Amino acid sequence: MLDVNAGIPLADEPAILAETIRVVQSVVDVPLVNSVTAEEDRLEAVLPLVARYGAAVVAITNDETGISEDPDVRFELARLIVNRAREHGIPAADIVVDPLVMPIGAMRGAGRQVMSLARRLSGELGVNTTCGASNISFGLPNRAGINASFLAMAAGAGLTSAITNPLEPEIRQAVLAADVLTGNDHNCTAWIRANRSSGSTAGDGRGRRVTGRRRAEAGA
Amino acid sequence: MLDVNAGIPLADEPAILAETIRVVQSVVDVPLVNSVTAEEDRLEAVLPLVARYGAAVVAITNDETGISEDPDVRFELARLIVNRAREHGIPAADIVVDPLVMPIGAMRGAGRQVMSLARRLSGELGVNTTCGASNISFGLPNRAGINASFLAMAAGAGLTSAITNPLEPEIRQAVLAADVLTGNDHNCTAWIRANRSSGSTAGDGRGRRVTGRRRAEAGA
Repeated sequence: MLDVNAGIPLADEPAILAETIRVVQSVVDVPLVNSVTAEEDRLEAVLPLVARYGAAVVAITNDETGISEDPDVRFELARLIVNRAREHGIPAADIVVDPLVMPIGAMRGAGRQVMSLARRLSGELGVNTTCGASNISFGLPNRAGINASFLAMAAGAGLTSAITNPLEPEIRQAVLAADVLTGNDHNCTAWIRANRSSGSTAGDGRGRRVTGRRRAEAGA
Repeated sequence: MLDVNAGIPLADEPAILAETIRVVQSVVDVPLVNSVTAEEDRLEAVLPLVARYGAAVVAITNDETGISEDPDVRFELARLIVNRAREHGIPAADIVVDPLVMPIGAMRGAGRQVMSLARRLSGELGVNTTCGASNISFGLPNRAGINASFLAMAAGAGLTSAITNPLEPEIRQAVLAADVLTGNDHNCTAWIRANRSSGSTAGDGRGRRVTGRRRAEAGA
């Protein structure tokens, strides 16, 4: 799915967003999503629209007081949004909760927080999940390396989607591998297709670079 | 730590193992470990030695009947070994349980099994864990890609070590990234050192290959 963003300071954001959505919908068939926070006025404005159109919605776990650094506070805000959505007839599976990813270079527990929240959101609330995955590596060298391992780790903890760059070879590889490892790539079909190459056989040590190039070409 | 193996059919294995250990100990300071299964004669032979020398021991979760495909059976064998070890005065932290990794290409749930067992072994038994990580990718193309994501995912689930090839650049990168993401690389010092390069800056898309070469040189 696509999360279309027209947050441009000082510009006519509503007009730009409407035009952007028309353009995007003219070229792709994937669903578009918008988001809601736990702020009262946002809940009242967005949830009736989500219910009316049978849409999914991204739930961002902050309220009027901002983003809490305490993951338990963020979890309770997710629960609040789920409960309010239920009153509008919106099922938990149509809510895609963003547990909010902090930079690991600034907050040592940021990774563990995401894993714990992804497990609880899926297990206790039954929602889907997403996050701005590359936030985790902000300020660090070789961000793609951190991001790739983060996506695999988070998928293992139950994260069901991520806002990320699917054209980055390391990200694509990590997501495909995570699908294999979580049992979501039946018979490893997608993995084998992505890594099929006359020059690339299991364990020859050259598979990675060949794969990276092939994927970049396929994705561009 | 090093797991020294002298399993060579038709050779004088005890003599080879003893000589190998002498040679290995002459060049490295890391601890060596041996393993025990839940087979009665192995428990009786190995645990008194572990207790006597204050050693750690790898616990392999099979018994006289072989390796069960049921992860609950393997968990109960781990519990049995931990209980028997306690009778010898061996603390749980000195037991490194191998949950046994099956090839994901042959068993679709193999990855989920390892994640679940790593969490339970750490949380319920308080043991350390290890596994033959590359088993997971047996038979698939681009094994390093699967193995790297598997290690990150398993570390996130609580796996505390793995039998793997530390000279493989993708493995090294995944392990270093997992240390960052689990909060075990204080101030990201090891990650930054491993990725320090005048040609590699955050997000320039070239970090991976530069990094891979530097690591391979450093490790060789």
